[in-house]
Amino acid sequence: MGVLGLGRMGAALAGALLGAGHDVSVWNRSPLKAGPLLDRGARLAATPSEAAAADVVISCLSTYESQQPVLDAASLRGRTLVNLTSGTPEQARGAAKWAASEGVDYVDGVIMAVPQGIGTPGARILYSGSETAFAARRDVLEVLGEPVFLGEDAGMAALYDLALLGMMWSAMGGYLHALALVGSEGVTPAEFTPMALDWLSSVGGFLAGIGAQVASGDYETDVSALDINAAGLAMLVETSRAQGIGTEVPATLRALFDRAVAAGHGAHAIASVIEEIR
Amino acid sequence: MGVLGLGRMGAALAGALLGAGHDVSVWNRSPLKAGPLLDRGARLAATPSEAAAADVVISCLSTYESQQPVLDAASLRGRTLVNLTSGTPEQARGAAKWAASEGVDYVDGVIMAVPQGIGTPGARILYSGSETAFAARRDVLEVLGEPVFLGEDAGMAALYDLALLGMMWSAMGGYLHALALVGSEGVTPAEFTPMALDWLSSVGGFLAGIGAQVASGDYETDVSALDINAAGLAMLVETSRAQGIGTEVPATLRALFDRAVAAGHGAHAIASVIEEIR
Ligand SMILES: NC(=O)c1ccc[n+]([C@@H]2O[C@H](COP(=O)([O-])OP(=O)(O)OC[C@H]3O[C@@H](n4cnc5c(N)ncnc54)[C@H](OP(=O)(O)O)[C@@H]3O)[C@@H](O)[C@H]2O)c1
Ligand SMILES: NC(=O)c1ccc[n+]([C@@H]2O[C@H](COP(=O)([O-])OP(=O)(O)OC[C@H]3O[C@@H](n4cnc5c(N)ncnc54)[C@H](OP(=O)(O)O)[C@@H]3O)[C@@H](O)[C@H]2O)c1
Repeated sequence: MGVLGLGRMGAALAGALLGAGHDVSVWNRSPLKAGPLLDRGARLAATPSEAAAADVVISCLSTYESQQPVLDAASLRGRTLVNLTSGTPEQARGAAKWAASEGVDYVDGVIMAVPQGIGTPGARILYSGSETAFAARRDVLEVLGEPVFLGEDAGMAALYDLALLGMMWSAMGGYLHALALVGSEGVTPAEFTPMALDWLSSVGGFLAGIGAQVASGDYETDVSALDINAAGLAMLVETSRAQGIGTEVPATLRALFDRAVAAGHGAHAIASVIEEIR
Repeated sequence: MGVLGLGRMGAALAGALLGAGHDVSVWNRSPLKAGPLLDRGARLAATPSEAAAADVVISCLSTYESQQPVLDAASLRGRTLVNLTSGTPEQARGAAKWAASEGVDYVDGVIMAVPQGIGTPGARILYSGSETAFAARRDVLEVLGEPVFLGEDAGMAALYDLALLGMMWSAMGGYLHALALVGSEGVTPAEFTPMALDWLSSVGGFLAGIGAQVASGDYETDVSALDINAAGLAMLVETSRAQGIGTEVPATLRALFDRAVAAGHGAHAIASVIEEIR
């Protein structure tokens, strides 16, 4: 196994492979970061192409821009490249095309876990691209996390990644705003967070119903109408301002909800807001 | 028990009280909505003051603006008013002041549940205001949901409410954006949602760590640096635009994350974004 990139995530991937008894050769721009992995039995590759002597090469760098020169230097012909660098669907499709022209089997992957979660239950990695290559090396991929294959369109994993990460950034933005708001009255994160986590798990329970309404286009509700939620967002913006904290996170949602109300969805479910997004 | 307001939530509250065997008298502007409750043994009050003959009066209308004339008409002197209408901390403090001047014991409450959850485990209602009145009628309040008392500042429940609802609206906004994004490639809510829910529960697991970093002000990270997340948000905005869907939800977060990077937090944890909110 070859691993290109030993940042937080690349090092975790290489570590999991070593833990499963694989032969791992690692390359990183700053070779010092390989130290702890060498202690665990990894071999240090002096160049990307040395790491690419293995039949499966996993790449995890910051961005596609930083990755392409490394891939070019790696001489991957005849190998399977598992690209775990985050990017857009367009970038993933571009990389698949490049790989095809270079005689490289290409699997694009996105990691729905933090480095500390790699190799533990609950870590999920989504793949798309060559199904043959995915199926042939599923054993290796299972070491990193639960592999899920999304189809031969190489851009699909990146699309899911951005959609899911967007949910994460939204949830984190909402949580940070909430901490700032209660913090303005002296409530600490330790006091607030247990309640916030219970609440977020209740909210998770509401989402499946929202998804079903989006699917059916039937926005009738006996739960909660959009106009009352839009009024709540107005109160949140007003209160945030009164407490002297930023307003942009709720203000954006307020504008979106207000637009949906103006479009006639006031008595409908919150799900109807998607009409103003898509 | 008197209940003012029989919208989705007021009807659920009255229903739970009836279910627990309480004597309940109900008032609503549109009396027809009382029908199902009368079938279950509620008494219909012709005026707010008739419902306020009870020693405990629960009020749940759309807004404080719609509620005040009803409270004025109810002659609540000597009663305990449990105000479950959503509002701002300022409005709750104003209502507490008004109640004090009228000789009314005032408890402000906010419901962290949907109507269908009232009276079931997991429904939580946060209260602030008169601790004496809260403690005296805790038995009644327990019928509606798990009561949590946040202190004598009547505004505290509303502050928590807006903070928690803000988390909900953010999570829902993120989910709806995600549905629109994957939907642009033909992925249905039914296909996407199970994965989204698993992921949101992983994200919940990240929040406590973020809270601890906010509390300590120590933003060092071995998990994920802000600059890579800001780059991810840029990709999400770009991809949303390329797929022809709205960009405002991720664009706002991107602007916030970019500002934190510009302020020097690029190598720090996501928690550092709070510096740009508070
Ligand atoms: N951390 C997470 O929680 C997480 C979760 C899911 C997905 N990911 C994705 O995993 C990828 C890596 O993330 P990370 O957290 O490991 O990032 P990181 O800790 O910042 O590591 C970045 C890696 O990219 C390398 N690199 C950057 N620019 C380079 C260049 N111009 N030439 C050669 N190498 C270069 C770095 O090499 P040096 O060591 O020499 O700087 C390092 O190996 C990203 O695409 C990220 O979105 C991360
Ligand atoms: N639904 C939820 O999931 C939920 C969750 C937590 C908190 N809440 C809060 O609970 C409160 C009620 O919400 P809801 O969902 O029950 O709303 P709803 O179904 O829209 O009911 C609104 C209630 O307010 C009354 N009302 C409105 N304007 C009035 C006026 N000018 N004069 C007299 N009565 C008036 C309505 O009377 P008519 O029947 O005559 O129109 C109805 O009883 C809100 O503050 C909401 O934020 C709701």
